[in-house]
Amino acid sequence: MSITGAIKEWQKAIGEENVRISSDILKAVETATFVTKQRIPAVIRPGSTEEVQKCMRIANRNGIAVYPVSKGKNWGLGSRVPPESAVLMELERMNRISDFNEEMAYVTIEPGVTFQQLFDLLNERKSGLMMDGIGSTPESSIIGNTMERGHGLGPYGERFDHVCGLQVVLPTGEIMNTGMERFDGSAVAKLHRWGIGPFTDGMFTQSNLGIVTRMNLFLMVKPAFFQSYFFDVNDENKLVDLFDTMHRLRHSGVNTVFRIFNDHRLISFITQYPWKETNGVTPLPDHMLKKLRKIWVGFGQWNVHGAIFSPSRAAGMADRKMIMKAFRGKVDRMFFLDEMRAKLIRLIAPLYNWIMGVDLIKFVDWGFSKSILRGTPSIAALNMCYWRKKTPIPAVMDPDKDRCGVHWYCPTVPFQGKHVLRAIRIIYDICAKYKLEPNMGLLCMSERVIDMTGALIYDRDVPGEDARAMACHNELVTTLMKAGYYPYRLGLQQYDLMPSPIDDTVVVMNRIKKALDPKNILAPGRYEPEPRNRTKTKPARKPVAKKKAGKKK
Amino acid sequence: MSITGAIKEWQKAIGEENVRISSDILKAVETATFVTKQRIPAVIRPGSTEEVQKCMRIANRNGIAVYPVSKGKNWGLGSRVPPESAVLMELERMNRISDFNEEMAYVTIEPGVTFQQLFDLLNERKSGLMMDGIGSTPESSIIGNTMERGHGLGPYGERFDHVCGLQVVLPTGEIMNTGMERFDGSAVAKLHRWGIGPFTDGMFTQSNLGIVTRMNLFLMVKPAFFQSYFFDVNDENKLVDLFDTMHRLRHSGVNTVFRIFNDHRLISFITQYPWKETNGVTPLPDHMLKKLRKIWVGFGQWNVHGAIFSPSRAAGMADRKMIMKAFRGKVDRMFFLDEMRAKLIRLIAPLYNWIMGVDLIKFVDWGFSKSILRGTPSIAALNMCYWRKKTPIPAVMDPDKDRCGVHWYCPTVPFQGKHVLRAIRIIYDICAKYKLEPNMGLLCMSERVIDMTGALIYDRDVPGEDARAMACHNELVTTLMKAGYYPYRLGLQQYDLMPSPIDDTVVVMNRIKKALDPKNILAPGRYEPEPRNRTKTKPARKPVAKKKAGKKK
Repeated sequence: MSITGAIKEWQKAIGEENVRISSDILKAVETATFVTKQRIPAVIRPGSTEEVQKCMRIANRNGIAVYPVSKGKNWGLGSRVPPESAVLMELERMNRISDFNEEMAYVTIEPGVTFQQLFDLLNERKSGLMMDGIGSTPESSIIGNTMERGHGLGPYGERFDHVCGLQVVLPTGEIMNTGMERFDGSAVAKLHRWGIGPFTDGMFTQSNLGIVTRMNLFLMVKPAFFQSYFFDVNDENKLVDLFDTMHRLRHSGVNTVFRIFNDHRLISFITQYPWKETNGVTPLPDHMLKKLRKIWVGFGQWNVHGAIFSPSRAAGMADRKMIMKAFRGKVDRMFFLDEMRAKLIRLIAPLYNWIMGVDLIKFVDWGFSKSILRGTPSIAALNMCYWRKKTPIPAVMDPDKDRCGVHWYCPTVPFQGKHVLRAIRIIYDICAKYKLEPNMGLLCMSERVIDMTGALIYDRDVPGEDARAMACHNELVTTLMKAGYYPYRLGLQQYDLMPSPIDDTVVVMNRIKKALDPKNILAPGRYEPEPRNRTKTKPARKPVAKKKAGKKK
Repeated sequence: MSITGAIKEWQKAIGEENVRISSDILKAVETATFVTKQRIPAVIRPGSTEEVQKCMRIANRNGIAVYPVSKGKNWGLGSRVPPESAVLMELERMNRISDFNEEMAYVTIEPGVTFQQLFDLLNERKSGLMMDGIGSTPESSIIGNTMERGHGLGPYGERFDHVCGLQVVLPTGEIMNTGMERFDGSAVAKLHRWGIGPFTDGMFTQSNLGIVTRMNLFLMVKPAFFQSYFFDVNDENKLVDLFDTMHRLRHSGVNTVFRIFNDHRLISFITQYPWKETNGVTPLPDHMLKKLRKIWVGFGQWNVHGAIFSPSRAAGMADRKMIMKAFRGKVDRMFFLDEMRAKLIRLIAPLYNWIMGVDLIKFVDWGFSKSILRGTPSIAALNMCYWRKKTPIPAVMDPDKDRCGVHWYCPTVPFQGKHVLRAIRIIYDICAKYKLEPNMGLLCMSERVIDMTGALIYDRDVPGEDARAMACHNELVTTLMKAGYYPYRLGLQQYDLMPSPIDDTVVVMNRIKKALDPKNILAPGRYEPEPRNRTKTKPARKPVAKKKAGKKK
């Protein structure tokens, strides 16, 4: 275990400028949007797959743990802080889009490639393809988000279903190409997802088993006819019916996707906490919430924003009709946008702005022309992190540095009204108890499941808030799990809240980890089958797990 | 290594009647549709997950290899014969459908559950759900087919994408539940595919790493409006345009699926080789092929059979219009069926039959009402195995026992006309060289790839044919791979034809195998990253692989 020795070796292998040890930098990367205690003794920045391999071989020789991130924008879930102290490996220098195929609709990307970068490429090429958007910063890594099984918002929103072949550097420095990429001269390497033999891609998602250094990603052909729509619901009692109707619609085969935001989420995109009007009282009083709902174009308590992707106008109008019919009487406001309506609104926008003071052009851009549902990246959602700050939102946002307090938690619930409402009530109750707003989004990821994203937003500069928000977060995550709503992804602060599996998963997965990473140097503690602290306090059920837990100390 | 000891232990653990060692039975299970030399010393038939665990623990103690099959109907790819001599574990006694949820559209099944069984359940319950069909016998196992990454024909045809949580018995007898199934009280265990942490399901497909004893499978809601369609193409030169058009259509978002059969495939569904008319000459002469095309409702050289799944009549008609427009002038015959047309044909059918001698009711059943594209199982495709037999097709078909010669080979090609045509030409040329018919089907599995299924059909009772067909098969598989068209699945006879991966896959996968199956007793030789005979003749690149190869002997 020689960190100084390893640093020297890394400097030699990838250049001194790519091994960072200045205390400013280290302090910055050790900072997340909540309290973290992990230490990062160095940041290494390999520029190629070969350099990643070299770095891992050096780490192995020296027994130094390494935690790889692509862009490190995992705000609310730990930013780039490792679960256990480790050298940070930043992959953002590897930012090439090494292949782009318009006809077969895919790209080949490296970990440093951002959503913005891909979007720009598609624009430059005047491509007929679209990527799937992200609700976070356009500067986040596509591979980072995908390997975390993060998801987008359109028909290609389940990103992992649209991955086709990975290049993976194993903890030992070896290389495995997945799918058909491992065969010489394969004509289907970037087209056929499974390969021959065990399909291994999933092993490297939410994982510490390998570093993904290249990925083929499918893109979607832009629909011939695109529509977006907006529904408001102002009564919690209508939610069960709303979600059950959506569930049936999705199952019917209508080509639509939708997400639902509550008022807190949308308001925090647009404005900061009204400290003055509330005299500093938190959480946001009900009358103030209702007042803020009138902001911009006005929001409901619950807001559905969806899109219909159609191969023809006729098919699109048929689907629109079905959606309108299904929701009639069940929502408080219903509004559809298509190319024609968007043009019309642009025409009347100046007049409307003059009379009503509301910029409809901005609305049409946000809700239709430059919609995230069409893959357009936007920085807007990031404003949310500054909701409780008493200082204005800076031009360049850096939630870690700016001491924004943010916890994300990501429960999944069955796509059934009764379950969705139950989860919402749990969240509202616990948030109220801790005097934080129940900032929520719900994503209909499939016919069967809703992925929720909850945010706890606070100001780290207010004494005591770090602890209170963490307590609130912990109660939320554990209560939701007890109700059966397990998260689809974990933040740093959540690993230790997970329950033990009811079967032999721990020993089996630990055996695989040991086979691939005998010195346990790749991202120790990350998405392990049983939280580290658990195996310490409670005897593991099998000797193998016991041995492993013992070794790690 | 004591087989007698193991047999005694198995008899005690699962009952004498479930351990079969009579020479008749063993000879039957050692028989496939081509020459096999592997020996099966016993057949064990556990009836529950616990019994599977017990069997594996006994196998481990005694160092006896075990090869699990569900129903063992893998005709043309090795039936139930293991790649290396091993005790056969048949899982067909485990045939419960232990959960069925109409609202959330899934079932929970065991390995012995067949397509027919699930279809019957849906009918009994008058369910609004449909399963995805299979082109093989209705008596095949759903889990068996899915874990082999076999696929179906409808929108849920990529079966593995519709699996949600597996129960797996590891070679050591331990149990791992995948996805959210591993957590106590999870409300999303049968709804959310990924779970938390590495997604492991893929590791157990085309694999010898575990035995799947339970699976949750998504079902599809029946479309409100269903149409099927038929195109003929009688000119090979039109194929490039046909496939390129299909490719664009799929990308456009039209809700359609399609498959293409050549004349040889369809004719062999319906009739046997015309030995008399050809005076025993093979392969089928061109004039005879043209004559046989006129059988039943008549076929083209290439036959597209597709379906449109729509949430409404309006959406369906919009899609039909797009398809008609896209293919106009590119195909020689175009015909659509919907409920109304089907009724009409049923009305005129008796008259038509009287005048033309063609049973249109049978056509409407096959092509629409009871279409495989609607999930209806059918035994019809199995006739094909008897194409070259000189005896009539028996009432109960058993291709292994009846000495049908069948080789399947399954290349994947990019969904681009030029690639499809190139692959077709390779297949036609090689088949002609070996005097076998180029019996082919093409499945449009996604927007980007075509999975081909080629069959070589011969009569094992004709001396010399076993060897000739195997030579033809080997040349086909290797030539197609050299052209870049790697198979999506392997038969027993194909493992040794695979090339070595270009990376460290072999050592990495062998390390995982060793971690999970230290004694290498689960299906040795099955889908291994590098064929056994290869590692013997050629030095492996890494010591780990070398060690492993040595141990296996």
